Amino acid sequence: MQVEIITIGDEILIGQIVDTNAAWMSAELNKVGFEVVQITSVHDDEKQITESLQQALTRADVVLFTGGIGPTNDDITKLTLSKYFQANLVFDEAVFANIENLLHHRRRAMNELTRSQAMVPDKATIIQNPLGTAPITWFDENDKVVVSMPGVPYEMKRAMTEEIIPKLQKRFQSQTVIHKSILVTGYPESALALKIADWEKMLPDRIRLAYLPQYNIVRLRLSVVGTDKSLLEKAINHQVDLLEEILGKAIIAKEDIPIEQLIAQYLILKNKTVATAESCTGGHIAHLITSVPGSSAYYKGTVVAYSNDVKVKLLQVDGEIIRKHGAVSQEVVEEMAKGVLRSMNTDYAIATSGIAGPDGGSIDKPVGTTWISVVTKDTCVTKKFHFSYDRKLNIERATQTALLMLLKLLR
Amino acid sequence: MQVEIITIGDEILIGQIVDTNAAWMSAELNKVGFEVVQITSVHDDEKQITESLQQALTRADVVLFTGGIGPTNDDITKLTLSKYFQANLVFDEAVFANIENLLHHRRRAMNELTRSQAMVPDKATIIQNPLGTAPITWFDENDKVVVSMPGVPYEMKRAMTEEIIPKLQKRFQSQTVIHKSILVTGYPESALALKIADWEKMLPDRIRLAYLPQYNIVRLRLSVVGTDKSLLEKAINHQVDLLEEILGKAIIAKEDIPIEQLIAQYLILKNKTVATAESCTGGHIAHLITSVPGSSAYYKGTVVAYSNDVKVKLLQVDGEIIRKHGAVSQEVVEEMAKGVLRSMNTDYAIATSGIAGPDGGSIDKPVGTTWISVVTKDTCVTKKFHFSYDRKLNIERATQTALLMLLKLLR
Repeated sequence: MQVEIITIGDEILIGQIVDTNAAWMSAELNKVGFEVVQITSVHDDEKQITESLQQALTRADVVLFTGGIGPTNDDITKLTLSKYFQANLVFDEAVFANIENLLHHRRRAMNELTRSQAMVPDKATIIQNPLGTAPITWFDENDKVVVSMPGVPYEMKRAMTEEIIPKLQKRFQSQTVIHKSILVTGYPESALALKIADWEKMLPDRIRLAYLPQYNIVRLRLSVVGTDKSLLEKAINHQVDLLEEILGKAIIAKEDIPIEQLIAQYLILKNKTVATAESCTGGHIAHLITSVPGSSAYYKGTVVAYSNDVKVKLLQVDGEIIRKHGAVSQEVVEEMAKGVLRSMNTDYAIATSGIAGPDGGSIDKPVGTTWISVVTKDTCVTKKFHFSYDRKLNIERATQTALLMLLKLLR
Repeated sequence: MQVEIITIGDEILIGQIVDTNAAWMSAELNKVGFEVVQITSVHDDEKQITESLQQALTRADVVLFTGGIGPTNDDITKLTLSKYFQANLVFDEAVFANIENLLHHRRRAMNELTRSQAMVPDKATIIQNPLGTAPITWFDENDKVVVSMPGVPYEMKRAMTEEIIPKLQKRFQSQTVIHKSILVTGYPESALALKIADWEKMLPDRIRLAYLPQYNIVRLRLSVVGTDKSLLEKAINHQVDLLEEILGKAIIAKEDIPIEQLIAQYLILKNKTVATAESCTGGHIAHLITSVPGSSAYYKGTVVAYSNDVKVKLLQVDGEIIRKHGAVSQEVVEEMAKGVLRSMNTDYAIATSGIAGPDGGSIDKPVGTTWISVVTKDTCVTKKFHFSYDRKLNIERATQTALLMLLKLLR
C-alpha cells in the first residue's frame, strides 16, 4: 500500500518553516509497513492543491494532507477538497461541541472564525481533534483514501497515532517493511563502502542498502519488504552478523538512535553519572543529554561558562592558567572538566572550550579551534579540533565529538 | 521566474532525516525574487526522478535537485539525469584535481568510488564543489535550467550562495518579492484575525497576508510581487504603520527573527548582561542564547542544576527550602534566579524548574508543571505554567516562555 504526503502552506515554500511533519509521518507510516512514495509541498492555492492531489492519486492509494485548515482566510484546503469531491459544507454538532470545550478550557470566547471550523464536508467521515479547532476529514472514494489533517505538529501527531494509522491498517492489507540501521564510526563514507564492498555484492536482491553519512558517523540502513515478518527479520539479522564480523568495534549501535541515547544506555548499565562544563557549545551538550527521558538519573548538570569569571568562580579554574594559556587551551579545558567533576561529584565529566565564531578568531587560534576533554577520577582524554567557519556547525560538531569521546570511554 | 526543488533520498521518505535543505533554499531564492512553486521529495529511483523532473518542467523554469550524488551505488541522480538529457559521462580533469586536493587535505586515499565522482555528463556545465567530491551539474536546454547539487547541507549552501543563485540571476530577469513579517504576542490566532479584520478587508489585492501561529506568538506575513522595489516597499510599510496603530505594543518585532535575537538587540542597546539557571529546560535556554553570534558580550553562562545537590552547591539555594517546598516551586525557582544573578554578577537572570516528563509527575504537580522566574536586583517576576505531556514540547515551551518573560522586562 502506497502513501503520498502533501503539505500545504506558503510558509514552507518561502522557507519560513521547515517541514518536520512529513518526516515524522513518513517514519510512523514506515514502521507499520506503509511505503511513502512522494512528499510534495504546495502553496495555499486551489489549483496547486487540486493538481497535486490528482497526480498523487495516480501513484498512491492514500493521500495525506497536512496544513491549510486553520480558521483564517488564507487557509483554503477544506474548501478545495470539498469542491474536488463535490461535497457540501454542513454544520457538525460534535465538532462544534469540541470547539466550545476547547475554548472554555483556554478561557477564550467563540467567534465567527472558530465557529466556521464546525462546517464540514458532507461526503467525508469526520474525525474529532481534541487538541484543536480544526477536525480531521477522511474521504474514501474510488478505492482511494484522502485525509486532511491539521499542520500543527502535536495535533497532527495525535491524529496520526490514535486515529489515522489504525484506520489505515484496518482499511488496507499492509506489507511488512523492516529497516535495520547500523551506526559505524571511524570510516569516511567511501572508505566504508570499499571495506564492505564484497559483503555488499553478496547481498540478496531484496535487501536494499543505503549509506547515510553524518558528522563522525555513517549510518548503514538495510531494508526489506515482504509478508513473512519472522523470515524477513532472520534475513536481515544474518546480514548484520556478517557485517559485524567485518567491522567489529567500529559498529557503535545496531539501531538508529542518537548518541545521547547510547550514552544513556551505558551510564544506566554501569550505574555511573556525568556532568558537563561548556564554553563554546553553550549548553548544547546539556540540551541533548537532557532531551532523553530519565536523564536525571545519571546527569547532574552543566555549567556554561561563557565568561572567564564564571570559569574561575563556578568551575574553580585557576585565573592564572587562563591568563597564561588563554581560555581556549588544553590546560583550561582540562581544569574545567576536573572542576565540574569535583563540584558536581560525578564519575565522568565533559568540557569544551573553543572559538565558535564568526568573531574571536586569531592566527594562532582561528575560528573553529576547539579543545574537548573527557575525564574520570583517574583518566583524562583531551583533544584539539579544527571544525569549520560556521558558528552553528561548530557548536554541533563540538557537541557530537564530545559525546562520541564520552561514548568511547564508556564502552 | 518560477523554481521547483526536488530533494532525492530514501532517508527523507522513510523519515530518517528532516529535509532542511528545501526550506533554506526556498528562503534564499525568495530573497532575490524567485518564487518556489513546489517542493517534491522522491526516492533514489530512476522512474520517480525522471517523472518528477518532467512534471516540474511543465510548471517551472528552473528545477533544482539536491542529494543522490554521493559516491556509493545507491545514488543514481547523475546517471538518471545523464540519460534524461542523453549525455555521456566523461572524465573531468578539474573535478579530479579538486577530489585529489580534498583527499590530501583530509589525509585520505583516493579509491575507485571517489575517482568515479570525476565522471561528469558532457552536456552539462560543471561547477566545482570545493567542499566535497561531488561536482554541481548545470543543464540548460529548451529554455529551462536543471541543476543537480549535493545534499550535504554546507556543500549545498555554498553552491547556492556563491554559484547557482548568481548564475540564475544573470540567466533570468527576476521580479522583486517583498516579504514583511510582524511578530505579535498576546493574541490567539483567531482573536488576532478578528482584531485586524477591518484592516485586512482594506488590504490592496496585490498584498497577500498569511498567519503563522507559533507558541505564544503569531507571525503575520505580508507579501507583494512586482518590479518597482521602492514602490512595493512603500506600500508594505504603509500597511505595517496601520497595523501598528491597531496593535501597539502587542507587536514585538517587525522582522522575522527568533526571540533570542530580539533579546540580544535589547541587551546590547541597554548594555546589560544576563545569566540563566536551568532545571527542566536542561540547557536549552543557554543553547538558544549562545546560538546568536556575539552573545558572549551579554551572556555570562548558565548553571543547569538537574540534581538538588547542584542547586544547593552552585546556585546557593537553601536545602531546607527544597525539602519544604520541593524543587518545582516558586520559592526554589526564585532562589535559583537570585543565586545565579549574584554568582555570575549579571543585570538579569532567568530560572526554570519544572517536570518535563514523561516521569516525575504527581497529582499536585502533574507533568508539564513549570515555574519560571526572571529577576533583576530590584524586581522578581515569577509565574507558574502547565505545559503539555510531551517532554520535548515542555522543554521548548518553557524555553520560549522564559525568553518572552525576559523580553517583556527588557522592553
